[in-house]
Amino acid sequence: MSESPPKNTLLYAGIDGGGTKCQVTLTDSNLKPLASARGGPANPYQDMATAKHAIETTLAAALDKAGLNRSAMSQVVIGMGLAGVNIREIHQAMCAWQLPCAKHFVTTDMHIANTAAHSAPNGAVIVIGTGTSGFCEVDGRTLSLGGHGYPLGDKGSGCWLGISAIQATLLAEDKLGPKTQLAPMVLEALQARTSLDLVAKLNNAKQRDFAALAPLVFSAAENEDAVAKNIIREGAEYLAGLAQRLLDFGAPRISAIGGLSKKMLPNIKSDLAQKFQPALEAPEMGAAIFARKQFKAMLSDPK
Amino acid sequence: MSESPPKNTLLYAGIDGGGTKCQVTLTDSNLKPLASARGGPANPYQDMATAKHAIETTLAAALDKAGLNRSAMSQVVIGMGLAGVNIREIHQAMCAWQLPCAKHFVTTDMHIANTAAHSAPNGAVIVIGTGTSGFCEVDGRTLSLGGHGYPLGDKGSGCWLGISAIQATLLAEDKLGPKTQLAPMVLEALQARTSLDLVAKLNNAKQRDFAALAPLVFSAAENEDAVAKNIIREGAEYLAGLAQRLLDFGAPRISAIGGLSKKMLPNIKSDLAQKFQPALEAPEMGAAIFARKQFKAMLSDPK
Repeated sequence: MSESPPKNTLLYAGIDGGGTKCQVTLTDSNLKPLASARGGPANPYQDMATAKHAIETTLAAALDKAGLNRSAMSQVVIGMGLAGVNIREIHQAMCAWQLPCAKHFVTTDMHIANTAAHSAPNGAVIVIGTGTSGFCEVDGRTLSLGGHGYPLGDKGSGCWLGISAIQATLLAEDKLGPKTQLAPMVLEALQARTSLDLVAKLNNAKQRDFAALAPLVFSAAENEDAVAKNIIREGAEYLAGLAQRLLDFGAPRISAIGGLSKKMLPNIKSDLAQKFQPALEAPEMGAAIFARKQFKAMLSDPK
Repeated sequence: MSESPPKNTLLYAGIDGGGTKCQVTLTDSNLKPLASARGGPANPYQDMATAKHAIETTLAAALDKAGLNRSAMSQVVIGMGLAGVNIREIHQAMCAWQLPCAKHFVTTDMHIANTAAHSAPNGAVIVIGTGTSGFCEVDGRTLSLGGHGYPLGDKGSGCWLGISAIQATLLAEDKLGPKTQLAPMVLEALQARTSLDLVAKLNNAKQRDFAALAPLVFSAAENEDAVAKNIIREGAEYLAGLAQRLLDFGAPRISAIGGLSKKMLPNIKSDLAQKFQPALEAPEMGAAIFARKQFKAMLSDPK
């Protein structure tokens, strides 16, 4: 049975939306979580209609899970941290969206990940997943680095590690590069007998398909393969530069998030790596924190 | 007015087919060119129906240009050098194609480019264009290297040079890499004000769009930009390795073809660069030479 929350009670919803999923957490007026739900891709730069649909249905699912009537949406203040809204036109379009909620605020996925990591705005975060990027906020000033996507950038990412393994394999097979344990590992993983097979199998590969090969690089490196160790070293050097730039900007705290952060962090030079601290909350909670902050600022300074 | 060639007279047609175009030369029985025609994309791996259509219409156009009746097709022995037929299934499908010609033979674009470069089978060729690859034939033994496509390989190619310029630009803009003249040049070429602009403009970029930026790298290098010079040096080192492997295989002669060969060759270390000799014929003539050789072999050794 669903019910209506008491009238005049505010709820918050934090949304973390990206190219693969949309994660929503619904909270009470004190940011205490009531329910969470997960939905489809929500990167409005890649596909705005799909992103809006994912956000609407995942919000509805969260209300359902909390046992609340869907009409309670009118009492929800929403914070959205979305990939792609660093592009001005996309940000404007998402802000102009007419939703049946109390209010909604839009910012980047990096911004809410950073807020979540420190449970406060000030701090820095680097994401080491399928892609890599960095963000920090210090007293209202922000800095965004990387996140340009492979092959333009995103060194040290899962996609970059996977493609580097394939490149090393093809060079070794052509005898134009050093022998490496990666060659038989990559060929086996993709069930390819030859370079030609390998290239054919990768014909329509997506970033996540390349990222799926990243664990092979760590395995080969643990087995002292020089080529694999070099790949990881090069990725870690890029990430160290990223982290240093964010710390130099004045970030009092830095966290690494994303599926490969545990694997890559130990490869960053130790004096820098020991400055990293665990993220305190999941990104969608950062979106809820952001929503409350923006809403309170709006109430105290109505335009 | 079109006419029929004397009955029992053979004609040859050489076809060079790739991802951007199909080039056909029709010759008499002594390989003396009668007419040439150019048609659309003819890479059967990328799109077999499109490739077959391009080949048929371009062959017809060559007959028309030679003033010959289209029924003369029954007297034409065709040699096709096609990108993509290094994949076995594609080669088989193209060989099984029922064409109203005397006979057709299928091989790779690299094979006919090599035959053309030396007007004989023995020799080596490296292609430096949108992509890079190497091929050689020595007394019937062949070796194919590279040609895997960016980002899996194709170092030293136009596409690789262009993407390297973009990577250097984004690193410089993020202050994660050295300053380079490439940054303002790339931003201006793509009419982008910021990194974000640049990435957005490249959202659906194809290999040829990246290759269009390659001239900027040569310009910046001529202007002593260290980053641009490093990019060219890295590409040239790969090409030198490719050339050395082909020479070590026993190739008596080596040529470089493709739109960037004139720009890249001077950057290959001089003792190696001076071994290169000009290609003697265009690739489609190599296909005609190949057709005649295969046809004569078939007549003298009928199965």
